This record gives sequence, C-alpha cells and structure tokens, in this order.
Amino acid sequence: MPNTMMRLQQVSSQVAATVSDAATTAATKPVSHPSMQAAHPLTLVPGPVEFTDEVLQAMATPSESHVSTQFVHVFADALALLRQLFFNTNTAAQPFAIAGAGTLGWDFVAANLIEPGEDVLVLTTGFFADSLADCITVYGGVPTQLRAPLGDIVPFDAIEAALKEKKYKAVTITHVDTSTGVLSDVPAISALVRRVSPETLVIVDGVCSVGVEEIRFDDWDLDLVLTAPQKAIGVPAGLSIFIASGRALEAVRTRKAPCTSYYASIPKWLPVMQAYESRKAAYFSTPPVQNIHALRASLEQILATPLEGRFAAHAHTSNRIKAAIADMGLKQVAVREGARAHGMTAVYLPENITPAQFLPLVAAKNIVLAGGLHKDIATKYFRIGHMGVSAIGEARDDFDQALAAIKDALDALKA
Amino acid sequence: MPNTMMRLQQVSSQVAATVSDAATTAATKPVSHPSMQAAHPLTLVPGPVEFTDEVLQAMATPSESHVSTQFVHVFADALALLRQLFFNTNTAAQPFAIAGAGTLGWDFVAANLIEPGEDVLVLTTGFFADSLADCITVYGGVPTQLRAPLGDIVPFDAIEAALKEKKYKAVTITHVDTSTGVLSDVPAISALVRRVSPETLVIVDGVCSVGVEEIRFDDWDLDLVLTAPQKAIGVPAGLSIFIASGRALEAVRTRKAPCTSYYASIPKWLPVMQAYESRKAAYFSTPPVQNIHALRASLEQILATPLEGRFAAHAHTSNRIKAAIADMGLKQVAVREGARAHGMTAVYLPENITPAQFLPLVAAKNIVLAGGLHKDIATKYFRIGHMGVSAIGEARDDFDQALAAIKDALDALKA
Repeated sequence: MPNTMMRLQQVSSQVAATVSDAATTAATKPVSHPSMQAAHPLTLVPGPVEFTDEVLQAMATPSESHVSTQFVHVFADALALLRQLFFNTNTAAQPFAIAGAGTLGWDFVAANLIEPGEDVLVLTTGFFADSLADCITVYGGVPTQLRAPLGDIVPFDAIEAALKEKKYKAVTITHVDTSTGVLSDVPAISALVRRVSPETLVIVDGVCSVGVEEIRFDDWDLDLVLTAPQKAIGVPAGLSIFIASGRALEAVRTRKAPCTSYYASIPKWLPVMQAYESRKAAYFSTPPVQNIHALRASLEQILATPLEGRFAAHAHTSNRIKAAIADMGLKQVAVREGARAHGMTAVYLPENITPAQFLPLVAAKNIVLAGGLHKDIATKYFRIGHMGVSAIGEARDDFDQALAAIKDALDALKA
Repeated sequence: MPNTMMRLQQVSSQVAATVSDAATTAATKPVSHPSMQAAHPLTLVPGPVEFTDEVLQAMATPSESHVSTQFVHVFADALALLRQLFFNTNTAAQPFAIAGAGTLGWDFVAANLIEPGEDVLVLTTGFFADSLADCITVYGGVPTQLRAPLGDIVPFDAIEAALKEKKYKAVTITHVDTSTGVLSDVPAISALVRRVSPETLVIVDGVCSVGVEEIRFDDWDLDLVLTAPQKAIGVPAGLSIFIASGRALEAVRTRKAPCTSYYASIPKWLPVMQAYESRKAAYFSTPPVQNIHALRASLEQILATPLEGRFAAHAHTSNRIKAAIADMGLKQVAVREGARAHGMTAVYLPENITPAQFLPLVAAKNIVLAGGLHKDIATKYFRIGHMGVSAIGEARDDFDQALAAIKDALDALKA
C-alpha cells in the first residue's frame, strides 16, 4: 500500500502513539507531519529514520504463533520482497531476516564465510570498517585494512595491488560508511575483484545503503550484502538482514572447520529461511513476528513503485541538502564529488562551534540530528540522515524544517 | 490480515491509540481486557503469548534516536525494572536487553562465561538443554549432559555425584523446558552447587519461566539467568534478556582467552548497559528502540502489583488447566507433581490421535495451541501456553474457550 494512501484518507484507526514525557516537553508544537503519529521530534539521523504509519501499525500486530500459517505467509512475502530489493532472481542466493541488529550481520560474515586463519581485505572508509575488522579477528580471520584518506575512497590501484599480493578469502566494502558519508563504488570494486582474484568473496556492508543506493546483487556478482532495517528500509531496529550468493553458501557448506557461532550460524538458519520462503514453518529460534510484519509492510511500500524512482528521489533530496549546506558555507566530510552517500550527509561545523553547542539548538526546533562518530574528528562535525519517508514522502517538509533549524542554530552561535 | 472472528466485542480495526505514557497507564488502570485489538485467533502457545494493548502500542512508538535523552530514559527504566523482576538489588549484577532472541542468550553464556576446554554440567530435562549443549560445543566448551528420564527432573544425587567427580566451570539448569513442561528446582540445585562446588557458576535458562515462576536472583545466589520477551514477560519476540552476577562478570573480566563472539560479547555490551542504566547514551550496536519501549511498558504493568500475586495467579490458572486436562482423561508429559511448569502444560493425546489431526480442529475455534517439540514423542502430544494476560488478565475467558475447544476436538476425533 503506498504510504500516501494513509495520509490522504482520514482513517479512523490510529497508530498507537505513546507520547513520552520527554517528547511532550521537547515538542512544544506538533510537528507538521502529514501522518497519524503523535507529535514527536523529527528523527533525521542516519538511522533510525522516521517510519510510515503502516510500518508502525505492523509493529503493533496482535500476537501470532511463529509457526502459524498466517505468519508463515508474512515471512515468505518479506523474503520474496527482499529479493526484489536486491534485484535478485537467482534462487541459488538466499535472503535472511533474523532477530538482531546490523552489527550481527558482521558475525554472520566472520563466523561463516571466513575460516580461522584466512585473510580478508577490509576496505576502510570510516569507523565501521574498523569494527568489522575487529569482528573478523574475534572469529579467527585475519583482516588487512586498506585505509582511505579521511573522507575519501580507497584508490582502485591500491585494491588491485593488494589483491595481487596475497590470496584473500574475501574483500569487504562498506557501501556507505555512516561515520563519514563516503559512498564506495561497489560495482567497480566487484568487477576489479572478479578480474584480479575471481574466487575472492565480495562482501558489502550495506547498512546505510540498502534501500537508498542502487545494489544489483546478481548483476554485480556480489556474495553477501548485509543491512539493518532502521535505515533506508524504514523499519524499526531489531533485525539483521542479509542476502548470500550461491557461491557464499557453497563456501559455508564446504568449510573445513565448523561455523564458529551458534546463533549467527548460516547452517542453522539456511533451512529455516528456505522453509519460510516456501511457505512452511521451521524452527531454530523464535523469529520476531512483529518486526517481520513491519519489514513486509515497508517493503510493500518501497516496491510498489520502481526502485529506480526511489533512488532518484533520494538523490534529489540529497543534492538539495548538500547544496543548502554548501550555501551555508559548510564543508562535507566526504570530500569527493561522486563518492558521497545519498541517504546521509556528514558536515563539518564552523571552527569554534562544537556539536555539543549546535545539536541542542537544533533539537529545540524538534529536529534530531546526529553527532560525529569518526574518532579523529568526532567533535568537529554532525550528521544528517535523509532516508525514507522524511526524504521522499509526499507532502512532507521535514528538510525545510531541518535546514531552517540548522541555519538558525549556526546564526545564533555565530552571533 | 485474515479476518478471523475471535472476540465477541467488535472494536476498531487497529490497536487503540493515544493512551498516554505506559507508566500512567500501569498506575491508573489495570491491564485492560477484553482488549482493543483487532479480532484474531488466540495465541495460547508457550510463547509468543497474547500481548496487552499497551505493549503493542509501545511497539508502535514513533521513531526516536537511540541516543536521544528521551530513549535513554526508557532504556534506563526498562533495565531498572528488570532488576525488580529478578528481585535483584545487588548492583554488582547487571541486566542486559539486546536485540536478538532467547537463543542468543546461550551464545552470551557459551562465548563469555565458558572458556575453550572448560567443562559444563548441563542438566537436561528436554529438547532445549540439548541445544544449549550444542551451543557450548560451538564455542569450545565441553558439555556433560545429565539426562532426566523423559518428563522428569534430574535427581539431586546424580547432580551431587557429578559435581564431586569433576570440576565444572558452570552448571546449567533449564528452569522450565518448553518441550516437556518440566519445572526444575532452581534454588535447591543452586544450594547444592554452592555446597559441593562453590566456585561453579549457576546458569539458568529462564526462557519459559521468567515472569511466571519465582526467581530470586540474589537470594538464590545465581550467576546468570537468560530469557526471551515473548513468554511470561509479555513482549513480542526480538530481544535477548539476561542478568549476570558480579561473580559471572568477574569470570568474564578475568578470562584467559578473549570472548569468542563479537555481537554476543559481554565486554562490548556491559559498558553500554551501564551507561543506559545511568541515563547516558553509549553505542556498540543500535538498540531496538520500539522493543525496549514495549519491554518497559510490560514490566511497568507486571510490577505495578507484587510479583508474588502474579506467580499465585499463574499457579491458579495452571492448576485449573491441569485439572481440566486430567478430567478429560489426558496425561501430562511432566510426570512429577511439584515439578510442573506454571506457564505451560504439555499433554499427551489419546492413542491414535495425532497433533496433525487435533490442532486444526482446535484452530477452527480460533485457539492456537502448539504441537510437540521433544523428538522422542513429538507426534504424541501438544502444548498449551498459559502465561501473561491470557492467564491472569481480568475479564478474560481465554481458557474457557481453549478448554472447550480441546474437549470438542477430542470428542469429534473419538466419535
């Protein structure tokens, strides 16, 4: 159901809306959303994003048994829709949706695709690749980080040289590093890997990219893309979502050592996902029924129109925000034109203005932005998330409000 | 959504809206039932259970940043309430609530409390201890299973003999095994361990017990109790919940080898939980904001009256169901009086009647029960969950309906 439908209709049913004391205090006036949600500050961070009414309604689905026919169909639909989200039609690949978080996706990679002692080339464009390298180490893999200059991408020649120097079991790419807003060129890197080291698995951390940046899983010959729901998929946090290629699943099947995680075990979950997708129940651990309902609801909204339009609409909003930021004399952390995320912007504050001064002034206008995350510059910048309904919803003025709040805060601090 | 008729009252098509803060709700009115939820089959399985309206409303909380002041207070409240749920006042212990599932709690145990090569005594009263032993093995621990006869508890003298034979790093107890309905005597076993092997950690799988069976974490000198939200805590699946003692945390701190999981790492999560509980934000992985809201909402309802009353009310419902089952000539899987769960009942079907015949007839009356799970008897029994609002909510007739449906189904199959 298109999310505009809900807004245009005056539906009698209301989304459950718990207004906490803090929200009531902060929101001195109702935020002008054309939604049925209670007044609340606009969350414009790089995840969690604002959710549609239908997604929140799905989160409040009355109880269902996780093995009921009713729920089995919901889960099957969600998995089928995930394939569409990844432009995947090759059934050798398998999508997964498991109770957890984006971070848990790294455990799935490190404990299943990498065997102890195997080398992994980690392309590092910010904070999150450091954490991924840490995760690989925990499970006995050996990460080699290729570090981009701060705000930039890893040069292709450096990747090619590294791949020629040593045999890597996998290369990991952070599609969008949420700490810097740098966008990596996934299809180009994947093509490079296939040319230079064809057996190396190509793994994409798509936490801040899936649903806003184009990802063609089959065409780009990727092996695993992991993500989280609370970013451009527009679903509350609480899931680890990923899709694994036939090549990746074969690598798991032919491991010499058993998988080194119990919960984050592809061998345990694969038959469960296959069963649900074929509309049969299976059990390893109780799935999060309501979150899966919400995933289906959001994917139905996202996929009701061609994804290309969604990507273009996000790019349009992103360009507008980046232009407005430049007009205010502010610089982005992501330095390279063409290597900047379309769902978030990381912005340096003027000298002598800190996030601790700036963010509360913006929050006073009911706009929630995020502070810095990259340790080298954490006190010098802030981040705006522009994914999902805030970025591309019809009849929304979230970024009119946000840009005005940013400008007012800066003016006040410079005065 | 299927339009199966269920409740007699016809209410609006979605969860009722705009109830204020759950705290106010819990304080000013008892759990409101019959509920405002859409008509749906009654889910009376040993988890997920039926949820209160307030819990479902909390699941639909509009977006909040996971590091917002607003959410920090919600998380802090939830953690403080978890301490109350476990009768915990010793601040050397720490409760945790993490995106995941009950099963993930086993990874937390096996990857943090047990070092590779260490022995663990696993008291086995059903299917779930087998899985726990499997999990321990994945992380390099060495489980020794003490198996109870089917439907019975592990004899104390066998536990004592085992503890005297070898030094165990930990003993694990499945408080209620959801596959059999057997209730283990946690305080007696804990006292036995402290007497015979005082340094051995006492770990309780409380997945089907926390919130329905008495658990006094401090008084019983336990080291870790893990659970899932969708049972007697009355919150949708999607969280791994546990509390670890000071002794357990010290064992993690003084490990010789690093923790063998990345996501299920107590060292990673401990500072995050400590920060949120002291009402400050911290980041390791994005918490599931809506699920934490729901956890707080349910714990506020549960703890609005003394827990002793909650346990007594569940026991009353359990006794009534078990008596009715006996009146129908059916036998329980849990053979021992005094060692039967109060939140579920596992019931043998008459000879020549299978769950595949029986459950659909019950479901036709909009009552969802569960099939068998223990592999030795899976086709011979069914399970009823009687936890939370269905079991103890005011003005509910869930088990009048369920018992009538069970009787009618049996009569039809015998006819």
